[in-house]
Amino acid sequence: MTDDPTRPLTVPRAASAGGPGLFVTFEGGDGAGKTTQASMLEDWLGSRGHTVVRTREPGGTEVGVRIRDIVLHHRGHIAARAEALLYAADRAHHIETVVQPAIARGDVVIQDRYLDSSVAYQGAGRVLDADDIRTLSLWATGGLLPDLTVLLDLDPAAARRRLDADDKPFDRLEAEKSEFHARVRAGFLALAVAEPRRFLVLDATLPADELARHVRAAVFARLS
Amino acid sequence: MTDDPTRPLTVPRAASAGGPGLFVTFEGGDGAGKTTQASMLEDWLGSRGHTVVRTREPGGTEVGVRIRDIVLHHRGHIAARAEALLYAADRAHHIETVVQPAIARGDVVIQDRYLDSSVAYQGAGRVLDADDIRTLSLWATGGLLPDLTVLLDLDPAAARRRLDADDKPFDRLEAEKSEFHARVRAGFLALAVAEPRRFLVLDATLPADELARHVRAAVFARLS
Repeated sequence: MTDDPTRPLTVPRAASAGGPGLFVTFEGGDGAGKTTQASMLEDWLGSRGHTVVRTREPGGTEVGVRIRDIVLHHRGHIAARAEALLYAADRAHHIETVVQPAIARGDVVIQDRYLDSSVAYQGAGRVLDADDIRTLSLWATGGLLPDLTVLLDLDPAAARRRLDADDKPFDRLEAEKSEFHARVRAGFLALAVAEPRRFLVLDATLPADELARHVRAAVFARLS
Repeated sequence: MTDDPTRPLTVPRAASAGGPGLFVTFEGGDGAGKTTQASMLEDWLGSRGHTVVRTREPGGTEVGVRIRDIVLHHRGHIAARAEALLYAADRAHHIETVVQPAIARGDVVIQDRYLDSSVAYQGAGRVLDADDIRTLSLWATGGLLPDLTVLLDLDPAAARRRLDADDKPFDRLEAEKSEFHARVRAGFLALAVAEPRRFLVLDATLPADELARHVRAAVFARLS
């Protein structure tokens, strides 16, 4: 027991699982094609005889569904730090009861969103420190990082062109949303730059088949 | 954004609220008399014209009730880190929406259990690092410490004598429970030693009126 309030959390050196299985996460904005690519990867791995666990956060466990229900459906304000801690609690339970056992069995876990989403979205929201969110997530999971994180990077200019095609003027809310998503994208890219060996960054505007080929190659290299 | 997973959480220097109000917490094992003393203090403060907010954790807010329901009534295992993060989430929401506004209004907050309970009980459980629990709580609350913490210290020998009076042999579970409560007590006393100005440690076997006089004197000194 110390009296120093700034003592760091006991977070094991962040590392991939190191088990016989593989932990793959998909990250990126909504509409970037994460579900499509996760399904194509699942089919390919299945055809090669791998057991695949498809999962998600938040809400990947029974406890997680209840936590998600509080965050998404509570009428009224939830303190920003409470929300961040609730997401971290969901993650702690999900990793311990679903992901770690699957990796230990030798399965391939394909997960929609993980700690990078928390960091990118919270950081873009500017309410809480993005590094704090990362530290909380790592404490929650005992320092577990994916073996591979596929970032489907969606060019905001492309998204903007689709909006412009509607020939509607940008209102203030849409402008704010656009700025927010630009910050989320920048957050994801900064994370990928910091950990180049973990991340595979792909241009989400490429055809799905071409994206799937790149994903398969990266997974194949890590299975060998 | 850094790539250092051991970066500490951004916790403000731990401090009492410093608002016009006062934040008083009662700590100690079950049956130590916290509720009795809190009620006697509430009555005395009311008679002197103070507005008192009596509150508790976990479950002091609507969000907190739902969190408490997950922790206490979920069938089956909850990961230890998830449980710790859920309690921290309850605390974050409770402090931001109930305690801080009351202190800002100039009220006196009397709270049954706060971060010291989390540290003492989690530390005694030996599953998680007690310092981590303290750091999580301080992050959750923006570093808020009570102006006064009354620790009602119950002598385990006295508790043991009551058990012996039943003339029943100690079974293994009771022996384990006894050892656990001895560790909780030691945890509370260690916290009090580390922060002597915040803590008032009282022997819970003293008569309630005598305890109440000591509590009033400590509160009076902090109101002046």
